[in-house]
This record gives sequence, C-alpha cells and structure tokens, in this order.
Amino acid sequence: MALTQTDELTDDVFPFDRASAAPGQLRKIFRSGSYRGTTAAMADGYTQGNLAIIPERFALDFARFCQRNPQPCPMIGVSDTGNPQMFTLGKDIDIRTDIPSYNIYRNGEYEGSVADINEYWEDDSVAFVLGCSFSFEEALAQEKVPLRHQELGRTCPMYKTSIETEVSGPFGGGMVVSMRPMSPSDAIRASAITARFPHTHGMPVHMGNPLDIGITDIHKPDWGDPTEFYEGEIPVFWACGVTPQNAIQNARIPFVITHTPGSMLITDKISAIA
Amino acid sequence: MALTQTDELTDDVFPFDRASAAPGQLRKIFRSGSYRGTTAAMADGYTQGNLAIIPERFALDFARFCQRNPQPCPMIGVSDTGNPQMFTLGKDIDIRTDIPSYNIYRNGEYEGSVADINEYWEDDSVAFVLGCSFSFEEALAQEKVPLRHQELGRTCPMYKTSIETEVSGPFGGGMVVSMRPMSPSDAIRASAITARFPHTHGMPVHMGNPLDIGITDIHKPDWGDPTEFYEGEIPVFWACGVTPQNAIQNARIPFVITHTPGSMLITDKISAIA
Repeated sequence: MALTQTDELTDDVFPFDRASAAPGQLRKIFRSGSYRGTTAAMADGYTQGNLAIIPERFALDFARFCQRNPQPCPMIGVSDTGNPQMFTLGKDIDIRTDIPSYNIYRNGEYEGSVADINEYWEDDSVAFVLGCSFSFEEALAQEKVPLRHQELGRTCPMYKTSIETEVSGPFGGGMVVSMRPMSPSDAIRASAITARFPHTHGMPVHMGNPLDIGITDIHKPDWGDPTEFYEGEIPVFWACGVTPQNAIQNARIPFVITHTPGSMLITDKISAIA
Repeated sequence: MALTQTDELTDDVFPFDRASAAPGQLRKIFRSGSYRGTTAAMADGYTQGNLAIIPERFALDFARFCQRNPQPCPMIGVSDTGNPQMFTLGKDIDIRTDIPSYNIYRNGEYEGSVADINEYWEDDSVAFVLGCSFSFEEALAQEKVPLRHQELGRTCPMYKTSIETEVSGPFGGGMVVSMRPMSPSDAIRASAITARFPHTHGMPVHMGNPLDIGITDIHKPDWGDPTEFYEGEIPVFWACGVTPQNAIQNARIPFVITHTPGSMLITDKISAIA
C-alpha cells in the first residue's frame, strides 16, 4: 500500500534521523500517541506492513485468501487469537498501540480513526500484517530507479483491474495494482530488484498495455493521484495492498480494524529475502 | 522433504519420459493407482509438495505455524474445508487420488499406507501442501552443484536441531534440517541458487559447525542415511519438511493424512520465483 497523507512530524516528536532509526525507537513514539502520520521514509531496510484485524471466525478463510494471493496479500505476521503481541515480527510489538493511526470499520463502513485500539481489541481478534510497498520503493530509490510519484510529490496511482484474485470463502474480487512509469531499461532493473522482495509484493504483475489488465484510462486512477509519462516510458504494474482491504470491505465483515493508509507497522524484519 | 524409497516404476506405467513429462500426465497415472513410488526426478521445473490433511478445528493454528516458519513449512496450497479440489495448484487436482501413496495417522500413531484416501476424506478435512526440496535439488543439479547423497544412491541425511520453531497453538518443536556436504565455493553458489526457491525451503539456515545448531554427531542423522565428506567440504543445512510432520505428530492431532515420504504432489506451479 502506497497511500500517503499529510506529514505531521516535528523535530520534537522525532529527536533522531527517521530513515536510520531503529524500528523499536519509532514504535515507542507511535505508542506514546504523539504522532499520527505516514511511516514512509522511516527505518530504511526494515519491512513495513499493512494491518487487518478481523474476528477469528473469518481468520481461516482470510489466511487462505492471503496464501492464494501472495503478491497482493503477502502475510508477514498473524497474531494468536486475542493476543495483541506480534512476537514473530519484532521485540515488544503491541499491535493495539504501535501503529501511528488506525481505521475502524463496521459492516464495511468507515467509522473513524483512532490513535490506539486498546478499547477495540477483543478476545476473538486476529491481527494480520501484510507486507507493503514502502520497502521495495526504498530499494528502487537506492538503486537509482526513478519513482515519478515521489518526484512529483504525489501519491502513487492505483487501479482496479480485470485480474481476478483466487477466492476464499467471502474474500475475493479484482486485484488492485499500483503503477509506476519507467523506461524499458528501468522496468527491467525494477523487475529484478523487486523479485528480491516477495514479502512486499515482489515482481511486477504486468507491464505495457493497461487494457491487457482491464485498465481503460491510465490517467484516471481509482486511488491515488494521476502521474506523468516521459517520452518512451511504459507503465509498470505491481500488486497492491488495497486488494485485501477491498476484499475485506466487500465481504462485509461486521468489525474490522486496519492501519490508517500510509501509517504502517514498522517491523524488525529485514525487507529483502537475499 | 527428501526421503526416498524403492522405485517401483516400470515402462508399462510410464510410457513417456518422466523428467520432461507434464504434471497432469503424471497425476493421471497416480490417480489410476498403478504407481506407489517416489516422485523424484519427475516433471522437472515444477514444484512438488508435502501433504498434511488435518481437521478444520486445527487448521487456523497450523496455517499460523506455517506462516511463522516459512523455511521449513512453505505453504504453497491450502484447500477449502471439505473440498478435495486443489484448484490453486493446477488443473483438475483431486487431493484424494493424485498422489502415489498416502500415510494414515491416528492420535500420532502410523496406521498404514493407502493408494487413495477417498474413504478417509471428511467434510471437515483441510489439505495443506508445503513445498519440498526436490525442486531446488533439481536446480542445483542443473547448475552442476554436486549432491553427494544422490551420487551415493542414498537418502539425504536429516537432523533434529536446537533451532526452535515459532510456536502456534499445539504446533511447535525443533526445526529439522537436511544436510548436503559442499566445498565452500559450491556452498556459496547453492545459497544464491536456492534463494530463488523460497517456496521450497529457500536458502540454507546454517553452514559450518553442526554444534552451532545442536547437532552433536554429523555421521548419525536422525532420518535418512549418513553421507561422506570429501577434503575441504563443509556441511550445508536447509530447513526440512520433516519439521511440520514432527510438529503435527507431537500435537497428537486425532486424525492426520500425509503423503508417503518421497511420494509427493506434483503441482502445475513453476518452482523458482524468478
């Protein structure tokens, strides 16, 4: 997920360099409730994750949905039922407090955002953390692959597609993709680089003609901002973390908690597999 | 899992080259019940998988166990509850018939082997398919990395270790590893090659001193056959599919069906991620 939002950080909140900070340093600040903004460009090299908390009775079907659709839904951590400690993702991670901001949904409808979910966590809650594209975008930037939306100060464009996900129980629907314009040579390098990040969407799912995957107007994204193409560039498409969010919303699960777009869980896990 | 067993194939059973055969051709023969042997060296380039069928009430905990321990337990397919069609792993795969041989366990005790499980599949059955090392061994062989156990006509040695798995519900215990002796330069190449196969155990978990992972006598494996070291070689250890089998057995699940060691599910999925 590459949605961004207003950056609310101040020097008071982050008395250290955010990019080189340790994940635990940052989570401590999020836990204090003093920061509600994006986690982009923080803790370079560590995996960041989307959050979805659902009742246990939907958890097996959702785990199967993620297993069947690993590019849009790369499971990097699943809590024990009712236990908010994400002990497989790092030291002392309490999923109720350690993300800057949370969204609450009832019966598929957005109810509001909160700084912590201590009041909302239940005995039957299961937290799923799914890898997000911040990690591979950072790797692309380090390898000098230009990222247009960042150059323009915009949010990466995202699109509904005709690529069907593999259904599991109430979860299904079309895959959502993010798109980055690139020269063919950058697209080739970006494919090789992101192949090393299977836990954060991995390789592209398509490049070239948008119509091949059911996108009729590349200048009208369904989420995020339109972007610009330079001479000779082609669109390169990656599976996007909005896919599971849509699947959950369409399944009309009665009570769901997610991260607020852009405000991710920063884990202690290294992003690249090798 | 790299256990092998007596090869029972005949020209009558396989009227084509097994290594270049399509997965569906082979599964059709297994479905007929006329072959009960190993699937090693079949359908080159396609992922083969270990099987574990458990009752649904244990499935969420087991899915979490696999998610938390992806090197020994790489989930490549999970069935819908009660539906024997593994539609995410290939065309027309019926998990009740399409593996050469199955093992039946009750309360952790081996009850026997059967050619199909039509009588044993239940409405609450959930089938987990976990990637097996046949795929990466084939890739190593193609890249001319010598595999000693194959040269000697033996089964790859496997060991209990002091590496603890991440526990989930009743599932846990030590990681089991397979070991292949290699020169340092082959060990380096093997690490890079197997990194491309995260769905079939991926990179090594250790190389060098066996004591570092609690193995006191490298010449006395817990499963498989002892092997031989040549001058200057070091042991290289990979996570092994016996790990989840042990975890299931120790959990004393009342009724479990697995593949018979060496007789894997051959899927339509390509082995390497890139």
